[in-house]
Amino acid sequence: MDAIKVLILMGSASDKPVMAKAEAVLEEFGVAYKTLVRSAHRTPEATVQAVRDAEAAGCQVFICAAGMAAHLAGVVCSKTVRPVIGVPIASGPLNGEDALLSTVMMPPGLPVATVGINGAKNAGLLAVQMLAQHDDTLTEKLLADRKAQAEAILAE
Amino acid sequence: MDAIKVLILMGSASDKPVMAKAEAVLEEFGVAYKTLVRSAHRTPEATVQAVRDAEAAGCQVFICAAGMAAHLAGVVCSKTVRPVIGVPIASGPLNGEDALLSTVMMPPGLPVATVGINGAKNAGLLAVQMLAQHDDTLTEKLLADRKAQAEAILAE
Amino acid sequence: MDAIKVLILMGSASDKPVMAKAEAVLEEFGVAYKTLVRSAHRTPEATVQAVRDAEAAGCQVFICAAGMAAHLAGVVCSKTVRPVIGVPIASGPLNGEDALLSTVMMPPGLPVATVGINGAKNAGLLAVQMLAQHDDTLTEKLLADRKAQAEAILAE
Amino acid sequence: MDAIKVLILMGSASDKPVMAKAEAVLEEFGVAYKTLVRSAHRTPEATVQAVRDAEAAGCQVFICAAGMAAHLAGVVCSKTVRPVIGVPIASGPLNGEDALLSTVMMPPGLPVATVGINGAKNAGLLAVQMLAQHDDTLTEKLLADRKAQAEAILAE
Amino acid sequence: MDAIKVLILMGSASDKPVMAKAEAVLEEFGVAYKTLVRSAHRTPEATVQAVRDAEAAGCQVFICAAGMAAHLAGVVCSKTVRPVIGVPIASGPLNGEDALLSTVMMPPGLPVATVGINGAKNAGLLAVQMLAQHDDTLTEKLLADRKAQAEAILAE
Amino acid sequence: MDAIKVLILMGSASDKPVMAKAEAVLEEFGVAYKTLVRSAHRTPEATVQAVRDAEAAGCQVFICAAGMAAHLAGVVCSKTVRPVIGVPIASGPLNGEDALLSTVMMPPGLPVATVGINGAKNAGLLAVQMLAQHDDTLTEKLLADRKAQAEAILAE
Amino acid sequence: MDAIKVLILMGSASDKPVMAKAEAVLEEFGVAYKTLVRSAHRTPEATVQAVRDAEAAGCQVFICAAGMAAHLAGVVCSKTVRPVIGVPIASGPLNGEDALLSTVMMPPGLPVATVGINGAKNAGLLAVQMLAQHDDTLTEKLLADRKAQAEAILAE
Amino acid sequence: MDAIKVLILMGSASDKPVMAKAEAVLEEFGVAYKTLVRSAHRTPEATVQAVRDAEAAGCQVFICAAGMAAHLAGVVCSKTVRPVIGVPIASGPLNGEDALLSTVMMPPGLPVATVGINGAKNAGLLAVQMLAQHDDTLTEKLLADRKAQAEAILAE
Repeated sequence: MDAIKVLILMGSASDKPVMAKAEAVLEEFGVAYKTLVRSAHRTPEATVQAVRDAEAAGCQVFICAAGMAAHLAGVVCSKTVRPVIGVPIASGPLNGEDALLSTVMMPPGLPVATVGINGAKNAGLLAVQMLAQHDDTLTEKLLADRKAQAEAILAE
Repeated sequence: MDAIKVLILMGSASDKPVMAKAEAVLEEFGVAYKTLVRSAHRTPEATVQAVRDAEAAGCQVFICAAGMAAHLAGVVCSKTVRPVIGVPIASGPLNGEDALLSTVMMPPGLPVATVGINGAKNAGLLAVQMLAQHDDTLTEKLLADRKAQAEAILAE
Repeated sequence: MDAIKVLILMGSASDKPVMAKAEAVLEEFGVAYKTLVRSAHRTPEATVQAVRDAEAAGCQVFICAAGMAAHLAGVVCSKTVRPVIGVPIASGPLNGEDALLSTVMMPPGLPVATVGINGAKNAGLLAVQMLAQHDDTLTEKLLADRKAQAEAILAE
Repeated sequence: MDAIKVLILMGSASDKPVMAKAEAVLEEFGVAYKTLVRSAHRTPEATVQAVRDAEAAGCQVFICAAGMAAHLAGVVCSKTVRPVIGVPIASGPLNGEDALLSTVMMPPGLPVATVGINGAKNAGLLAVQMLAQHDDTLTEKLLADRKAQAEAILAE
Repeated sequence: MDAIKVLILMGSASDKPVMAKAEAVLEEFGVAYKTLVRSAHRTPEATVQAVRDAEAAGCQVFICAAGMAAHLAGVVCSKTVRPVIGVPIASGPLNGEDALLSTVMMPPGLPVATVGINGAKNAGLLAVQMLAQHDDTLTEKLLADRKAQAEAILAE
Repeated sequence: MDAIKVLILMGSASDKPVMAKAEAVLEEFGVAYKTLVRSAHRTPEATVQAVRDAEAAGCQVFICAAGMAAHLAGVVCSKTVRPVIGVPIASGPLNGEDALLSTVMMPPGLPVATVGINGAKNAGLLAVQMLAQHDDTLTEKLLADRKAQAEAILAE
Repeated sequence: MDAIKVLILMGSASDKPVMAKAEAVLEEFGVAYKTLVRSAHRTPEATVQAVRDAEAAGCQVFICAAGMAAHLAGVVCSKTVRPVIGVPIASGPLNGEDALLSTVMMPPGLPVATVGINGAKNAGLLAVQMLAQHDDTLTEKLLADRKAQAEAILAE
Repeated sequence: MDAIKVLILMGSASDKPVMAKAEAVLEEFGVAYKTLVRSAHRTPEATVQAVRDAEAAGCQVFICAAGMAAHLAGVVCSKTVRPVIGVPIASGPLNGEDALLSTVMMPPGLPVATVGINGAKNAGLLAVQMLAQHDDTLTEKLLADRKAQAEAILAE
């Protein structure tokens, strides 16, 4: 695996359109990342392997997206002490309420940094915020993004 | 591990009082079982090992109890093709609604046979029903249990 | 009734498209089954008769699908000690939340093995898992299915 | 069974304290009734028999109380064309939300006249309202009850 | 107002397509009824007047349909001791969950016989059941309807 | 009725402890008010009369508190064009979720200014805010209250 | 800013179609208002400035519309003692349930007068009701509006 | 303000017992932090000032706890590009469901890293994970903590 800062995992290929917004953020900020479809349930070993490969490649933050009984973020969290960002996906008849609770209500000891349902853009931004801790260029870009967001609102 | 037919796993020692009702059913029906506290998140490897040991010891059915973002049944399901019964535990501020959705809303391909919140007794009975498939003695006992249930109601 | 291993009951003909996924699983695994539309409320006697006929025909597992105040699995459960799998159907304005609670929250003594809302594929697989207990061929097929699922994910 | 106008069925003896309020209403209005503990799941045949015996004894209205996956009112409804009043009981971790949906969301064709969770007093009053259709004395008593309710409020 | 047995009130003309199913039932059973659009909030006096006129015209049962904060059934209930059937309508962003709770959770003393969300057909049938108490012809028709329902299911 | 600016209505005497916080606010701000127990359902005429008497006594704002299927604010709203503040009360098994939806989800044309469940203090403050529109003394007191709230926080 | 009585703020330009109903009400009643897109999160300073500018321009009532984690009304409330009306917008996968709770469940001390989800028309009417306190013309118009509402219903 | 890495803000002093678990984690890991009670609504300026002071003191991560319409994390997020962790507090009649949605469902552009309801311990651990990015000692301690968690489970 090439050097990366962020690994995006999603439980199903059908999550790709939503998660493209996280990829767009990382590209916009110039953060190296890789995206893989890995399932907590269907490919448990490959999921663990992806976490290990990513850490070896320098990965600092994991973004995990899943719908319904969304266990992917929790499973990844159990295999790394790097921050894990969970994105509950609105799929199935409960429209993401199940994925939200399955992602955010983690037991004490295993945190998942959960964003809103389908909150892929925020997941990308949160990853950048974490990486910006020791990277003034990223911090500057985040401040510029906020300014641009404000200007877009004020231009309405 | 001694020969067993059922392995009961629970995510936290605090689930023991609820799960005692599953144990009581298995004892009443004379089904060999073992109970372990194993966490999907805190002891992922030991959980997998417990599943493998149990299968080697003849285990036919798994009962997995967990609260909140209850991933234990799903994780066990991903490691065995034996039936996995999930018991959502009412713990924390959402009182089991989170555990129910985290347990039952599994993606296609990985079934968890979910009983009601805190439904430990039904989990035990469901395990017995599965084992009774080729065991006429268990079937007789199940029929007797139904009769006893009816008589208890009619005696009110 | 011809010899069967699984009886699929659904409360309404409108459930057929969802339940076709359960039928597809049973066909894929070579499990003999029969499907009937029977309503807990509209055809109570015919429902009971179907359970008896199925047991006489060798049925080992029941799959019951219903929407809204979904009582079908519970009613069947009260008439047999064979495992009953409940499939809550997403119909009506509450989109299956009512069917889920009506199916899974059974009182102690009468278990229904509930899968997710519209979880027909998982209902079929769970039935196969139960039947595989003493059938090494089915077990092999289940392991192959898991492998195929994993490969499909990894091929994305 | 002695001549009765109303049969009160409850799924569990633990529902008795709640349902005592329905009994109190019927006694206050001088309506003959009988109360039985009968379970849709545990005593299906005895439940059907109770419905038949009650109809033979002149029963005009059924009141059915149950908690969790509350199927009792629906099962009774499937066996009679007399009005069936359903009382969802707040028991278990979901506090009656499950019983409400299981009782009220009946499919087209089988109505259950549902009152609020634990609404035993209203169930009794609704039964009286139905019986008052051709009974001017009951109608007068209902009007007097409304007046008394108003006076109690105004006396605060 | 001509002689009627049932008055159907709905809070908004937009409820007409749903409530047409109640009208169809009453027509099928030959029950005289009248339908009016009356709002608990917008036409409080006209609503009360409609209740009084209906009672003078022989009305025995009221059916009240409303969406969102559905107060119509409760308001009518406060003005009559005849049975009031409430039909929660699925309108607005909460899709009837608000109407269900606003209709069914009446305080002790004022019952509303609530059917499922959009349960207009069941409201019509419940009204017929109430009227059938002293009308053997209606009872026969109800039994025939049940038989027809069963046959329709068995013909699938 | 003596001259008042605010009328507090509550559906049940059991709401008094919660609503005492609204009374305390009005007393603290020196706003004349009156409190009555009046039920939308049990005392519909007396409720209407209270609204009329209050308007004649100079009432500018109504505060209406009720639990469960909380219709009181809506009923009062239908009888006045003065602002009506609704306070959903947490009573019964659904703990105020029913009262919140019954109060806030009013149809277009009839607004109820809803505060949080049991939000009696905020109801009192909102009434004062409305009355402060042309009353600089009240505005000053409101600003002082905000300052005091801030100081209390900062003193922690 | 020109003299206004009402400031309408919305968190996103996508809320404009819903909020047009509030604008229509204010125009119909001849109330001067201004509408701005301002975000509690993206333009916090500009939001505060808008509140100050509006107060300087004579603004008496604020209407704040936002979806999802809807903080706009709360943020405005923290900056003024004028009444703040909150309109939860149905956007995103939870369809306004999140916005409703985020808007209405304010802590003691900071009231937001919340209307129903997407209740823009009622927000406009509530603002007019507040302004009508010392304006007999507006009161007359409100009474006429109620009459027109009633006539529209009765004309169905 | 002394040099700190983490600022813990809570909306009310009543949140202190819950948030003590976050403080305990930070102390255990030797991370400098400060705790302040600041309200998004009651002390908006002091909240902003606390964020600025904390950044000047070297703060890298913010932890914000609030109940009901929990806006604190969102408000802080709008004032910094450092990661903000939100802890929904279970207070009031909805027991944290309101706080969870108010915290996690942030609009695109403003991420809040949300943990479970009352998840103070996980908030502390997540902050440590973020700080460990360039701190091998913290990473070692996190790994040791995981090991200790596993051992505690296995010792049951």
